[in-house]
Amino acid sequence: MTSRKLQVVSPVPADIDIANSVVPLHISEIAKDLHLNPDHYDLYGKYKAKVLLSVFDELKEREDGYYVVVGGITPTPLGEGKSTTTVGLCQALGAFLDKKVVTTLRQPSQGPTFGIKGGAAGGGYSQVIPMDEFNLHLTGDIHAITAANNLLAAAIDTRIFHENTQKDAALLNRLCPPNKEGVRTFNDIMFRRLKKLNINKTKPEDLTPEEVNKFARLDIDPDSITWRRVMDVNDRFLRKITVGQGPDEKGMVRETGFDISVASEIMAVLALTTSLSDMRERLGKMVIGNSKSGDPITADDLGLGGALTVLMKDAINPTLMQTLEGTPVLVHAGPFANIAHGNSSIVADKIALKLVGPGGYVVTEAGFGSDIGTEKFMNIKCRYSGLKPQCAIIVATIRALKMHGGGPVVTAGKPLDRAYVTENVGLVEAGCVNLARHIENTRAYGVNVVVAVNKFSTDTDAEIAAVKNAALAAGAFDAVLCTHHAHGGKGAVDLGIAVQKACESATQPLKFLYPLDISIKEKIEAIARSYGASGVEYSDQAEKQIEMYTKQGFSGLPICMAKTQYSFSDNASAKGAPSGFVLPIRDVRGSIGAGFIYPLVGTMSTMPGLPTRPCFYDIDLDTETGRVKGLS
Amino acid sequence: MTSRKLQVVSPVPADIDIANSVVPLHISEIAKDLHLNPDHYDLYGKYKAKVLLSVFDELKEREDGYYVVVGGITPTPLGEGKSTTTVGLCQALGAFLDKKVVTTLRQPSQGPTFGIKGGAAGGGYSQVIPMDEFNLHLTGDIHAITAANNLLAAAIDTRIFHENTQKDAALLNRLCPPNKEGVRTFNDIMFRRLKKLNINKTKPEDLTPEEVNKFARLDIDPDSITWRRVMDVNDRFLRKITVGQGPDEKGMVRETGFDISVASEIMAVLALTTSLSDMRERLGKMVIGNSKSGDPITADDLGLGGALTVLMKDAINPTLMQTLEGTPVLVHAGPFANIAHGNSSIVADKIALKLVGPGGYVVTEAGFGSDIGTEKFMNIKCRYSGLKPQCAIIVATIRALKMHGGGPVVTAGKPLDRAYVTENVGLVEAGCVNLARHIENTRAYGVNVVVAVNKFSTDTDAEIAAVKNAALAAGAFDAVLCTHHAHGGKGAVDLGIAVQKACESATQPLKFLYPLDISIKEKIEAIARSYGASGVEYSDQAEKQIEMYTKQGFSGLPICMAKTQYSFSDNASAKGAPSGFVLPIRDVRGSIGAGFIYPLVGTMSTMPGLPTRPCFYDIDLDTETGRVKGLS
Repeated sequence: MTSRKLQVVSPVPADIDIANSVVPLHISEIAKDLHLNPDHYDLYGKYKAKVLLSVFDELKEREDGYYVVVGGITPTPLGEGKSTTTVGLCQALGAFLDKKVVTTLRQPSQGPTFGIKGGAAGGGYSQVIPMDEFNLHLTGDIHAITAANNLLAAAIDTRIFHENTQKDAALLNRLCPPNKEGVRTFNDIMFRRLKKLNINKTKPEDLTPEEVNKFARLDIDPDSITWRRVMDVNDRFLRKITVGQGPDEKGMVRETGFDISVASEIMAVLALTTSLSDMRERLGKMVIGNSKSGDPITADDLGLGGALTVLMKDAINPTLMQTLEGTPVLVHAGPFANIAHGNSSIVADKIALKLVGPGGYVVTEAGFGSDIGTEKFMNIKCRYSGLKPQCAIIVATIRALKMHGGGPVVTAGKPLDRAYVTENVGLVEAGCVNLARHIENTRAYGVNVVVAVNKFSTDTDAEIAAVKNAALAAGAFDAVLCTHHAHGGKGAVDLGIAVQKACESATQPLKFLYPLDISIKEKIEAIARSYGASGVEYSDQAEKQIEMYTKQGFSGLPICMAKTQYSFSDNASAKGAPSGFVLPIRDVRGSIGAGFIYPLVGTMSTMPGLPTRPCFYDIDLDTETGRVKGLS
Repeated sequence: MTSRKLQVVSPVPADIDIANSVVPLHISEIAKDLHLNPDHYDLYGKYKAKVLLSVFDELKEREDGYYVVVGGITPTPLGEGKSTTTVGLCQALGAFLDKKVVTTLRQPSQGPTFGIKGGAAGGGYSQVIPMDEFNLHLTGDIHAITAANNLLAAAIDTRIFHENTQKDAALLNRLCPPNKEGVRTFNDIMFRRLKKLNINKTKPEDLTPEEVNKFARLDIDPDSITWRRVMDVNDRFLRKITVGQGPDEKGMVRETGFDISVASEIMAVLALTTSLSDMRERLGKMVIGNSKSGDPITADDLGLGGALTVLMKDAINPTLMQTLEGTPVLVHAGPFANIAHGNSSIVADKIALKLVGPGGYVVTEAGFGSDIGTEKFMNIKCRYSGLKPQCAIIVATIRALKMHGGGPVVTAGKPLDRAYVTENVGLVEAGCVNLARHIENTRAYGVNVVVAVNKFSTDTDAEIAAVKNAALAAGAFDAVLCTHHAHGGKGAVDLGIAVQKACESATQPLKFLYPLDISIKEKIEAIARSYGASGVEYSDQAEKQIEMYTKQGFSGLPICMAKTQYSFSDNASAKGAPSGFVLPIRDVRGSIGAGFIYPLVGTMSTMPGLPTRPCFYDIDLDTETGRVKGLS
């Protein structure tokens, strides 16, 4: 069976077996469907291609297609099938409703693939293929991020080290070595720092001793460094480490740690950038900590903005892949959904909207429930891109709604309670308060909301009817049952028709939840109110940070809330639609280059671990065929 | 100017300017010249392709071409142009002498590109292009090595952590969870461990408590762990670190460190493997340390041999690139030249020898002087590949010979002493003792030795004549002046003709320096004698390690000496051809999966640092054209 001709069997086989049963089309075929010629992309093997950013410039004058974002209700720890629904909807639009369509998805982190979670390519008969290439390496973007992030980290410690052992004049002489003619000069990136320091001189020898000190000595406060190293591996022993213990590092030890690579600010930059020159500026503006006098120190101050851009120059091009039914997918960027904004890239969406053109569809997924994913999609991603969605989907499952209605705790790896696999309309109805709030919050952006009920085999007609009624009562444009997991695109045709109607009848402009020109606290409070909070409480540390970022001139940035995805509130066990609570802000941090301030509502783990029996035990290569076995 | 039509100017411009002045051919053109069709390779953009291993199987019956290895005399810290000569020779053979030729080169480490060194693509008019793609990311092989290396590192600490908190029975139950039918089973990789333990049972419940303990508890001795984490960044602050200081790691702190990625044993495995199934076995056999009872613990014991192979499955395919004159280059693997064997991959050479076929040439470079690079090429690489070179080149410069003759110390970054830029035949003649020993040692392998004098503009005819005379007196097949840096392939035509004659007249079989079935010490001593040593002295630690490796059954492996490249002896300042010294062995380590034991003659730095002004200050992207600036 080759891609495009999907023959489904029942019961649904394992994801990897479905993925392996389909021979993908050569990616140049998928590109041709989008009217891309070989100059528009770089092949990476037979089933992946990087679509070049220049395509957007070429099609700039073309009208955009419809823009659809897929969010969800507050999920159980098992997930409610947002990615699967995103892929299934596109298979329906492309393979059954004859629409031009591009799915835009996040690139998954490689590390967790070897831990406890499976891949992130969708599931059942709604998947991106080849599944192993999607989950591992892809076209190297995350590896590029790791390299760039860690080069910056190395530069920070080394700069402090060299400043500790050299006087100002020696530093200047080393930074500006004589050229062949014996003349010392500043180079381009040094002029950026001089400009920031309001020094208008062009020759090193013209600097006063005070200016030499300001220019050559960054004087980084080691305690202020927020830049950590990253690795795309679940390595819990790197969460907190001490570096610099070698005999040659002269006792300059420091406590720091590693995050998983997708938590790097550079990933958020990649997701939010709009062009090569914009990426160059954002990378240069990233703040790694403060000088001892409290000034923010940037990658450009360290001389690195250009080199980081060079390391990221190919990563800015989105990767073209395909679904099981041969519809095109652009995979690009995968920032964390809590400490970052959890959405795939702006550039992929912008290119895709031009490629599908008027009447076509671009469907993208926003991480976590709509309180986090869709909110950040609207207030951060769309704010930077200038794009406006016509339709937002909210994926719901009977299982999650029952949990919100008061059902027993759902735990990954443990069997589901009976309440979840037998009819219980009462629980479903009670749980719809969660759905209703997601609908109301999402409608407030001025988009039409379509609820997609992702069907499980144990769901009953009465339960599904209850959800539909509640959805429409809460103001949804439509609510539709989907069976794309079992049937591929065919199972999401009704959803596709509903989305089409929702897009065609959308007329309102995008209304943000908050303007940018209010204070950091006012913005935090606007988001907190949308969660149902009656107020916000700030720790001393949070107050201090808000004051600092405001003083440093960063209060005009949008807010990226780092909150649990398991409740509207900060308390993961508060299901349904909690209200009247006070939202605690424990700390406030900034991704200044990416362009947002992120308040920490709880403790966010930024480095997962491995269990006693990680799934790598099952992963192997068939060395005869070269095929990957055991990936799930 | 497009590749293949080289127009040289004088004086020679900067490397990057030459590289940027040539438009490379589409790599499919280069592939076509080698009679490769699109099924034989995967494109990675327009100028790189991965040649699939299956090509070798397809051409298995074809006769090999000639096999030429390029080594050097003991170098100055400035380098004597081995890579440049390798590339220049191939440009001569391919573009001027109408021979089928493939250059096989190591992939350079990305980290140092941003530090103090320039790229490694050759120089002047003898380069591999595109130079930025050669030096950065390439096709992701080093990134794959980093990911695999660090997954194994994470698995080690996490396994110890989980074993510390669980009883034997709980460990077994977690390792062998019940399947859907409620039955506990061993999987493939577990049967490898059972076999190693001589346990012939097939069901977890049949194990005795002692067997459960042996199987499920690896009981790794934390002090014995030799596996370190890696990163392809010059990050000196990671040389020695303490991990596990997070609150959730229960105080299980441990001192360890990071090496640069190319120092990973996985890089050495990639370089020495001969097939996918061989790579699977080598990766699984890698020893990470010992159990508390002294048994070696492998990647397969940790359940990881298969997953590591999956991460490396694309990395095993060599990357096709081109020279400035459009001749093909296979870039593949770049192991350290001291703690590893410093040679590019076996699979690239094997594929290349089939592609050029009888009468064609494969020219590869061996890292450092011939005492290290060529010795390891013969005794390790050729031993594993079964291949036999016909000709070995020794690259010499007047500059280095003068140093060996007693010239003043040569220091990178400082101006050369007058002795090096004015005629001094006496110094050259005196220095030829170094060249002579390299020639004699290399001839002993049964190959014809051609000396290539890499000409600098200040070299005089009398000096060059002195080298030629000394070379022939020492038994060289020929000695030839080369000007490929200034003239491209045209400047190495004489060398090409000499190499052709040397290959055509080679008749002897390959004679190794030592057999494998003698003791570790006897092998070390055979190599030491070739350096001119009168004996070997072992530290207590070295004695202990030799005893351990012998007891563990690894004494049959070849030896990979970790010695300074700046002298035949352990003392970098002993130039010329020192003799009568006692070679000190400070420690002995093993790369068991890769397949060698490496005695440490000195302290080898495996993680470089960044200077006060790293070259990243000059690196930027022209965001209009997408072109890299400032890379050198």
